[in-house]
Amino acid sequence: MSVEPRLLANAIRALAMDAVQAANSGHPGMPMGMADVATILFTEYLKHDPQDPEWHDRDRFVLSAGHGSMLVYALLHLTGYEKPTMDDIRNFRQLNSPCAGHPENFMLAGIEATTGPLGQGFAMAVGMAIAERHLNATFGDDLVDHRTWAIAGDGCLMEGINHEAVGLAGHLKLGRLNVLWDNNKITIDGATDLSTSEDIPARYRASGWHVVSCDGHDFTDIRRALDEAIADPRPSLVDCRTIIGWGAPNKQGTAATHGAALGPDEVAAARVQLVWDSEPFDLPGEILDAWREAGRRNAGAHEQWRERLASHSEREEFVRRMEGRLPEGFSLDAWLADLAANPQKVATRKASELALGAINDALPETIGGSADLTGSNNTKTKAQKPLTADDYSGRYIYYGIREFGMSAAMNGMALHGGVIPYGGTFLVFSDYCRPAIRLSALQGVRVVYVMTHDSIGLGEDGPTHQPVEHVMSLRMIPNLAVYRPADAVETAECWALSLQRQDGPSLLALTRQNLPQLRTERTDNRSAKGAYRLRAAGAARKVVLLATGSEVETAIATADALESQGIGADVVSMPCWSLFDAQDAAYRADILGGDALRVSIEAGTTLGWQRYTGFDGLNIGLDRFGASAPAEDLFKRFGFTAEAIVPQILEALQNSRSG
Amino acid sequence: MSVEPRLLANAIRALAMDAVQAANSGHPGMPMGMADVATILFTEYLKHDPQDPEWHDRDRFVLSAGHGSMLVYALLHLTGYEKPTMDDIRNFRQLNSPCAGHPENFMLAGIEATTGPLGQGFAMAVGMAIAERHLNATFGDDLVDHRTWAIAGDGCLMEGINHEAVGLAGHLKLGRLNVLWDNNKITIDGATDLSTSEDIPARYRASGWHVVSCDGHDFTDIRRALDEAIADPRPSLVDCRTIIGWGAPNKQGTAATHGAALGPDEVAAARVQLVWDSEPFDLPGEILDAWREAGRRNAGAHEQWRERLASHSEREEFVRRMEGRLPEGFSLDAWLADLAANPQKVATRKASELALGAINDALPETIGGSADLTGSNNTKTKAQKPLTADDYSGRYIYYGIREFGMSAAMNGMALHGGVIPYGGTFLVFSDYCRPAIRLSALQGVRVVYVMTHDSIGLGEDGPTHQPVEHVMSLRMIPNLAVYRPADAVETAECWALSLQRQDGPSLLALTRQNLPQLRTERTDNRSAKGAYRLRAAGAARKVVLLATGSEVETAIATADALESQGIGADVVSMPCWSLFDAQDAAYRADILGGDALRVSIEAGTTLGWQRYTGFDGLNIGLDRFGASAPAEDLFKRFGFTAEAIVPQILEALQNSRSG
Repeated sequence: MSVEPRLLANAIRALAMDAVQAANSGHPGMPMGMADVATILFTEYLKHDPQDPEWHDRDRFVLSAGHGSMLVYALLHLTGYEKPTMDDIRNFRQLNSPCAGHPENFMLAGIEATTGPLGQGFAMAVGMAIAERHLNATFGDDLVDHRTWAIAGDGCLMEGINHEAVGLAGHLKLGRLNVLWDNNKITIDGATDLSTSEDIPARYRASGWHVVSCDGHDFTDIRRALDEAIADPRPSLVDCRTIIGWGAPNKQGTAATHGAALGPDEVAAARVQLVWDSEPFDLPGEILDAWREAGRRNAGAHEQWRERLASHSEREEFVRRMEGRLPEGFSLDAWLADLAANPQKVATRKASELALGAINDALPETIGGSADLTGSNNTKTKAQKPLTADDYSGRYIYYGIREFGMSAAMNGMALHGGVIPYGGTFLVFSDYCRPAIRLSALQGVRVVYVMTHDSIGLGEDGPTHQPVEHVMSLRMIPNLAVYRPADAVETAECWALSLQRQDGPSLLALTRQNLPQLRTERTDNRSAKGAYRLRAAGAARKVVLLATGSEVETAIATADALESQGIGADVVSMPCWSLFDAQDAAYRADILGGDALRVSIEAGTTLGWQRYTGFDGLNIGLDRFGASAPAEDLFKRFGFTAEAIVPQILEALQNSRSG
Repeated sequence: MSVEPRLLANAIRALAMDAVQAANSGHPGMPMGMADVATILFTEYLKHDPQDPEWHDRDRFVLSAGHGSMLVYALLHLTGYEKPTMDDIRNFRQLNSPCAGHPENFMLAGIEATTGPLGQGFAMAVGMAIAERHLNATFGDDLVDHRTWAIAGDGCLMEGINHEAVGLAGHLKLGRLNVLWDNNKITIDGATDLSTSEDIPARYRASGWHVVSCDGHDFTDIRRALDEAIADPRPSLVDCRTIIGWGAPNKQGTAATHGAALGPDEVAAARVQLVWDSEPFDLPGEILDAWREAGRRNAGAHEQWRERLASHSEREEFVRRMEGRLPEGFSLDAWLADLAANPQKVATRKASELALGAINDALPETIGGSADLTGSNNTKTKAQKPLTADDYSGRYIYYGIREFGMSAAMNGMALHGGVIPYGGTFLVFSDYCRPAIRLSALQGVRVVYVMTHDSIGLGEDGPTHQPVEHVMSLRMIPNLAVYRPADAVETAECWALSLQRQDGPSLLALTRQNLPQLRTERTDNRSAKGAYRLRAAGAARKVVLLATGSEVETAIATADALESQGIGADVVSMPCWSLFDAQDAAYRADILGGDALRVSIEAGTTLGWQRYTGFDGLNIGLDRFGASAPAEDLFKRFGFTAEAIVPQILEALQNSRSG
């Protein structure tokens, strides 16, 4: 290359400081500090093709320190991606610009993951590296042979999830994963030694990582470190010693460059320091040319890969999986027919395992796992062998006691493509996973959360382990499909819907305790409408009982008791609110039953149910923490029995008559 | 002591296996494995007095591996605490027994923390150790001079929060903290090497910890290790090599002992193995006597401490703080009067800082902090100097990028007593803290969460940083008071309520952006009722606008527009739903305004607002992720302006007239 790397890097610096200055908002320090390292990575090491951001065998790059988003926008523009344009960069952090405050995978091709919530980008990179090794083990070097790179800051390394991600990557010996640590010794509050005294390389080595250090502003040293990282069979942490805001003469090396525009004076001073004469958003031709040339350097490798793919015996299967299409004709109909013929009185967690038996046979792309609750979450089917450092072809991951790390890794696997990850823990520990669940939803990835022990039905483990607010609070996460199936049939239906949903995550809330199978006739997937009339009133309808999961059984018992007194009661099962809300108004009105008294029954918070019951309905729920006791005692204690519910309904009917 | 420690330990083993067997539910393996270590700790090292579990200068003991709850129940009973009785133990895991599935601080004196959600007990112990050193620095060795002990399992060490807790403790050089690691190499799924390859001692040393190993079944070796841990000035990890389920001849050392009763045959075989002839729940007299004698061994030290306290010049202040009483006459009235006289147009995060100025002057027991967002959360007041390893008397903690660790540490500080912790991060990262927030609520501790940037008003950082579902989903956590104040006055009021609340946590959701001060008259604390009529309709009331936080300003603009058309509209500010729900029916009905059209305005999920607006109301909110842009653009884009809202209200009024 004819242009000095420093000049290439300064193009990043100029774009970063100018874009942040224009927006008067953003983080110039990180892009300016890591510009040298990133230049070497993107011009000499990263296998990518800006002409085809979706090349399946590209290296994955994750900017875990997502606040430094201008770094990646500059890199994409400079190497020749169609987007972002210079206008997009000019509109950094403005409405509708794809150059959002933090990198968003749904706004720009080339952004492999949405980052910003610290620590998660790193952990998603671990998931990508898992997917790569798994697909390599499945399809071979000819089709899958790439690396995963991440840039992480001190924040990513301090977050708890980093421990989980590092432990998982080290245990699985993910040598294709290389993390470039922007070691600038600065956080928002000031110097890192305000809050930490950790010997970070020692910690990484303790988990089986290789660590190499370099001067992040010395190009020869950067190359040496990257070469060493690539050569080492362990996952590598490249300790890049950098100066935050490098090039801003008065502010570099300080927290002042971290999260605010440098100001016009300092931007001007940096121009002098960097010997950068161009106007904002104007790039010298030879520098841009050199960048674009670097961006084309993998075109040959890409073409060769295309040729290998074209002649590969498993081409169709590989492409199908990478595009996320289920096998033609995939359905759970056979299993549902089996259930109709042979009803199962099982816990829905067990029903999930039974459905997974059919799913895992039919879908070779599923990779299951659990955060150390395999036998409780029922996530492992017999045919699944473990995915281990010795055998990446396995399809079950023992994630260890790492709920958050598991969830973020699943996001990374789904983003990589070619696999459908699902993983389990207790529903109450969805709180531990919640930041990653939110990113599943925001990123629109197909991840299936198998959350068992979904209420006080968990029993003796007590209130620390009993979800109360969880189902409802998960329903509020945009783009997350939350399912609480009532029996084995609904569980299979909800699994089918989760798998068919390509553009977002699903979460199954499943019981510990056994439930009767409520449907034995063969039907279409009734859960697909989100809610449906499981049983129509016999006598004249006065009541509509709305319930989910294990409380549908309670609703039926309640309906029986009411009908025996001549009071007609519909029973509506509502496994998925978001799907129900997507139905047309006529359907919804029909199911909710006009002027009848609406009664919700769910062993969780009542706040939220007024959406369907209104003011005048009755909400049977639990607005306090549970307790430690056998499940049956708890359901009685907290009033989830027909005996406890019927009198409340009678009273409400009385009041509405007299009212 | 005349009785061999092994015999003492076997009493724990017998109680654990018999109680779990009786419940047919629970975790015998951990208590049986750690019985020897725990016996030495409780009979020879732990400074406690079973006659007075609230002795302020007792050592704190946290069973972080809370599933092994029978260990601590046995220890409390054996050393002579009033509770649990043998009947309580017999009713292990049954309704109303204080011997719950996991240890619950609100069920039994002597249980210092509610544990079970893995990793959090350890992190709470860190907080207790911080509080101890801080109070020692404040009141001296005569009053405060104790240690914090924890027992943690492999799960506690694998969880991400462990990294945060270890980093914080190492950085603060908490030498009074000693963690006994039950290193049994077994998790629920099987051997630890299924999921981890970490060199745990190396990781701890990397964060400034001292690590010492011992054979957890060799009493001499255990004493050596504990002596060394005490002697070392760093926080210590005592690596206790144990055999899970020790004493169960056929199952010990395997995952089979972890989380299920041993079964009658194995219990019988263990009795033979342990040479334990007593019936279940029957303890040999000499063994019980020896335990009780050990339980009395600190009586003298306690008496001496009482004498020192009685003659101490700061006795009253010390006792006040430890009992959690605010200083007599504490109020924010002077500050509120100041605000009334000099209205502040500031962000509520800034209003919080201003209120904290008054609070921190008046309450020496507050300890503030932030997870590396000090300048954004506005949590540090000028007079606060940092709490550091060199100066524990400081009252501000730079927690680093450790949201979850901060939150759990605050729980530990509050549980220790003598301090009122508050700490900040962005509201969206309440997701990272959520498992600890839930434990704040369950444990009923006074912790104040200062969560800023509480909506799309955060602006350019975009959807990863913009809360949508957070305020509502936090309202669902039982016993958590969630406040979203609308201006500087409400912010001060909500702070006052948070501090006055001794039995539970509070969370303040605060804006990034400036808000006008809406009240300038001096009044009682109107936020105390949770919701109140900020402005009554001028024209005949047709509409009641219900809003919180920054949207109260929007509600006022909307009311203005409606009134200008002759449509009367109340404006109700609802800073705290749970307080409003606690008011009497007449007050609530009056505020909600009978037959008027109810309109909620909140820049977050609408799900939940139907509780107050019913079916027929109008819900202005945000049921999708936000976007990256300046705040003002976003409020416009998503319809949070009077211009966008008024037509919807007019249409709704039209429909209700014609309907």
